[in-house]
Amino acid sequence: MATYDPNNIFAKILRGELPAQKVYEDAHTLAFMDISPRAPGHTLIIPKNPARNLLDVEPDDLAHVAVTSQKIAQAVMKAFGADGVTVQQFNESAGGQVVFHLHVHVIPRHEGVSLKPPAGPMEKPEVLAEAAERIKNALA
Amino acid sequence: MATYDPNNIFAKILRGELPAQKVYEDAHTLAFMDISPRAPGHTLIIPKNPARNLLDVEPDDLAHVAVTSQKIAQAVMKAFGADGVTVQQFNESAGGQVVFHLHVHVIPRHEGVSLKPPAGPMEKPEVLAEAAERIKNALA
Repeated sequence: MATYDPNNIFAKILRGELPAQKVYEDAHTLAFMDISPRAPGHTLIIPKNPARNLLDVEPDDLAHVAVTSQKIAQAVMKAFGADGVTVQQFNESAGGQVVFHLHVHVIPRHEGVSLKPPAGPMEKPEVLAEAAERIKNALA
Repeated sequence: MATYDPNNIFAKILRGELPAQKVYEDAHTLAFMDISPRAPGHTLIIPKNPARNLLDVEPDDLAHVAVTSQKIAQAVMKAFGADGVTVQQFNESAGGQVVFHLHVHVIPRHEGVSLKPPAGPMEKPEVLAEAAERIKNALA
């Protein structure tokens, strides 16, 4: 497996070099809106410590990511009146990974509504900002 | 959200009332082969304590499931010479959930090979047994 590349876009978000619509942050994890959501409210959860993916992450960092993913799943259910939540986590290109900093996708779902295809068009910043606001309110 | 149904099939596997091709077990978690694998080596990780899904699981149980999922991901990479791993976790019917005891899907992937559709045909017991053996050897 390749080593961690500190210039991946999520590392840049963590360093404040790229913007993101953040919804939650603690000592170990950060959660922000996916810019190409597969459904409204699609959120990503990442560890603050460097990790390429599930295969190399420190178990403690992974546990923190899991617990934050639960908080976000509960919040998107409330924020979007969702009927369910789909969680995905991709490792290496063959596994579906595109950005090589571990991330968990938390996607609110509604009965009868399919996911949009992966890597679709970027969402408008104001739509992402409104979604982030809803999730932050649900977390408060 | 509905409450936990202690007669779901994973609860029955935990109680030994239904068989499973087990690959790993510790105080908090159990891992066994999915009977309708989306790729060879498709493994499920569940908490031993009752939890319907991500929305109601105790955070400590979730953390244990995450750490076991990592062990299994690393093992299937080795056992199946995989190029990557796809992790999925479904919550409520709208989120893709079929069995209502929290479970994480860990699916080994190879470049250029798509996942089989969900809820496909049951795999032959001897094929699942051979896959389980490979994963146990990789964990040893």
